[in-house]
Amino acid sequence: MDAAEFRVRGKEIVDMVADYLENVQKRPVYPAVQPGYMRQLLPEAAPETAESWEDVIGDIERVIMPGAANPACTELEMIMMDWLGKMLDLPEQFLFCSGGKGGGVIQGSSSETTLICLLAARNQAILREKEANPALSEADIMAKMVGYCSDQAHSSVIRAGLFGAVKIVLLPTDEQQSLRGETLAHAVQKSKAEGLIPIFVCATLGTAFSCAFDNIEELGPVCSRERMWLHIDASYAGSAFICPEFRYLLSGVQFADSFNVSPHKLMRVTFDCSALWLKDSSKLVNTFNVDSALLMHHDGEGKITDYRHWQIPLARRFRSLKLWFVLRLHGVNGLQEYIRQHVKFAHEFETLVLTDRRFEIVGQVVLGLVCFRLKDSNAVNEQLLQRIIQDGRIHLVPSKIGNTYFLRFVVCSPDAGSKNVQFAWAVITELATDLLKDKKY
Amino acid sequence: MDAAEFRVRGKEIVDMVADYLENVQKRPVYPAVQPGYMRQLLPEAAPETAESWEDVIGDIERVIMPGAANPACTELEMIMMDWLGKMLDLPEQFLFCSGGKGGGVIQGSSSETTLICLLAARNQAILREKEANPALSEADIMAKMVGYCSDQAHSSVIRAGLFGAVKIVLLPTDEQQSLRGETLAHAVQKSKAEGLIPIFVCATLGTAFSCAFDNIEELGPVCSRERMWLHIDASYAGSAFICPEFRYLLSGVQFADSFNVSPHKLMRVTFDCSALWLKDSSKLVNTFNVDSALLMHHDGEGKITDYRHWQIPLARRFRSLKLWFVLRLHGVNGLQEYIRQHVKFAHEFETLVLTDRRFEIVGQVVLGLVCFRLKDSNAVNEQLLQRIIQDGRIHLVPSKIGNTYFLRFVVCSPDAGSKNVQFAWAVITELATDLLKDKKY
Repeated sequence: MDAAEFRVRGKEIVDMVADYLENVQKRPVYPAVQPGYMRQLLPEAAPETAESWEDVIGDIERVIMPGAANPACTELEMIMMDWLGKMLDLPEQFLFCSGGKGGGVIQGSSSETTLICLLAARNQAILREKEANPALSEADIMAKMVGYCSDQAHSSVIRAGLFGAVKIVLLPTDEQQSLRGETLAHAVQKSKAEGLIPIFVCATLGTAFSCAFDNIEELGPVCSRERMWLHIDASYAGSAFICPEFRYLLSGVQFADSFNVSPHKLMRVTFDCSALWLKDSSKLVNTFNVDSALLMHHDGEGKITDYRHWQIPLARRFRSLKLWFVLRLHGVNGLQEYIRQHVKFAHEFETLVLTDRRFEIVGQVVLGLVCFRLKDSNAVNEQLLQRIIQDGRIHLVPSKIGNTYFLRFVVCSPDAGSKNVQFAWAVITELATDLLKDKKY
Repeated sequence: MDAAEFRVRGKEIVDMVADYLENVQKRPVYPAVQPGYMRQLLPEAAPETAESWEDVIGDIERVIMPGAANPACTELEMIMMDWLGKMLDLPEQFLFCSGGKGGGVIQGSSSETTLICLLAARNQAILREKEANPALSEADIMAKMVGYCSDQAHSSVIRAGLFGAVKIVLLPTDEQQSLRGETLAHAVQKSKAEGLIPIFVCATLGTAFSCAFDNIEELGPVCSRERMWLHIDASYAGSAFICPEFRYLLSGVQFADSFNVSPHKLMRVTFDCSALWLKDSSKLVNTFNVDSALLMHHDGEGKITDYRHWQIPLARRFRSLKLWFVLRLHGVNGLQEYIRQHVKFAHEFETLVLTDRRFEIVGQVVLGLVCFRLKDSNAVNEQLLQRIIQDGRIHLVPSKIGNTYFLRFVVCSPDAGSKNVQFAWAVITELATDLLKDKKY
């Protein structure tokens, strides 16, 4: 949708809201629908091709209004999480439509999803250890718990450990910044030898530092064998798995207990919308369920999911609406195309870097992130970034792997084109030339 | 703003957004401002009377755009939290403008604020106990920690305890459902005699069950003496403290370490917007700060607050904008008037209940919530609620204190008037008459 169409559609929405406000007293106070009503009204999967604005907006009255805020808010979220899960080709166990214990939920951020999965893992382990050894107190067990992630993982994993009072061990990665199964297996043996209880692994697909991928096909069997909760954080990279050519990066997801991707990062959904799927949601619900008389007056009697037990806050926003709009207005094809463009820009930039002998690529360009640096000291690269900031024409964020400082290039704007890539590279090379000249004298 | 004006203003905003999108490439990539720039551009306090739409919307370009998302998002939030804190007559220690360690932050829900304050309390206590006795391990200390709230507190306090692995003791309340100082003092003595370490008290101002108020003037000195973190949860009731006649309910806030109110509940701000103030924010920051190289490239060198260390997620939305709009478009007077109307409706309903000898009031009507019941068994009152739900003309939620089941009436819609109160009462009495007649035969 371009700005011109946004002017028209936006104003239609303003009128819709005003009409609603003016007539809200004529609407029923209680929805007349039965829990589960929405499944009959919506297709089982997202449309392959884009739908028209009229079709999408018309469904507000047809699909949402009869179910008002409740149960519509919950039911649309359940259906959207199934749609998105199918787009990602997640194993059916993760979906509501399997009829099992699996399902998805929208959270605000990947940090929250990592934390709640760690808490569920902790709870599961306490129950198991207590059953195995009733003499142990909860505190005894907690003191021995340990979780793992790679030294490339996001700081939110360490934070989750701090909040949940679970020690997190950072494990070294291979030359591709990937955490390997053998490294994990050794760490687990070491922990157990120290009397610790391994409970949780957070694997990252698409690290923030350099968009590296942990090897979940190797990590998965270790987690299964050692009965550790495997959480996959694919916050940025996960959206790309809707393209068949990138889906291989998710091989091994069948071993995971939970999987997270943030459609607000690479799938055109506005912030915040972080999607989490669980293979067995009862493990989360059992951790979070503190029922209060105030909240128990008329539930859907087990027919619908009670998302308040799936998260830290109790109240919820209607975030599935924006996911519904994006999936239908673009269609699966349109979103795949969007991601392919994003990756194409990265490779265009990569090619430019490779043709300039003063520069080098750091790591591999797999999706939209290009890590690069001058073939020079860290100090010179830091100076280059400072000049880019002072110049003010483009914005880059640096990173470091081991002792190697580098710059990160990524195309973020949905309206960006090849000319922006070329412009950015022209700015970088111009400033690099000046810097290297100044350095000489 | 009525629906007719919303049509006009909403469409102006749509055009503003479209203009922004069409011209965003002409705007500077980096803001040209210095950290702290916004304080010079905005008044030190919220306006007493409503400002015009033109003045408010004009400030987007004047105040926000020069600071873009960063630092504008942080700086507006700091200023709004000071504005709101002054409206509530919070001690200056809680405000940024004191120049000390105090300040406020917007979170998504009261559940989150309770949790992060509990985590900060836990961290503070671990540091203190370790210093006092270096032989103790963190796990030893954690196993002994205990927090307190009343048996009327929201389930989110118990959940926070579960998440943070801190045992929470529910304390009995007096005949007004108020937690008293002596009760807490006794509980603390008992805990200490059992070898436990008291670290946290969550006092509630305006409980969800019946809008009861804990006695913070009594609880405060106990917390100070025992070096426990005192958190005040005034999620619903807190907004009322902007009216001088209700401010007495907050007496004792000077003893608190943290104070929470949710302007999305009673101050016309849309969900979500939950405000938290801390007397010493460094206690929170020290708990949450896990710095990553990615996030450290150009900070405001201590001149601005780094809110990512004040919350569970790292990313943030620009929620202070809606607070800014509401405070200016209504003015302090307008919001006070709104709250007074809300309370007036409650008293109007209370009077109706008191004039019907079949009914009784439960507890006290202090703000907008009226708790009432038929002078009959719980079963009959449960039947009345069932008939109200089946009837479908109004919506009520029940509650229970001890063994007494009752119904809760509260006016929520900003557009509600006396006629809605009268209508609701007519429905309730009609259905009660039918019920009591059916019961007789």
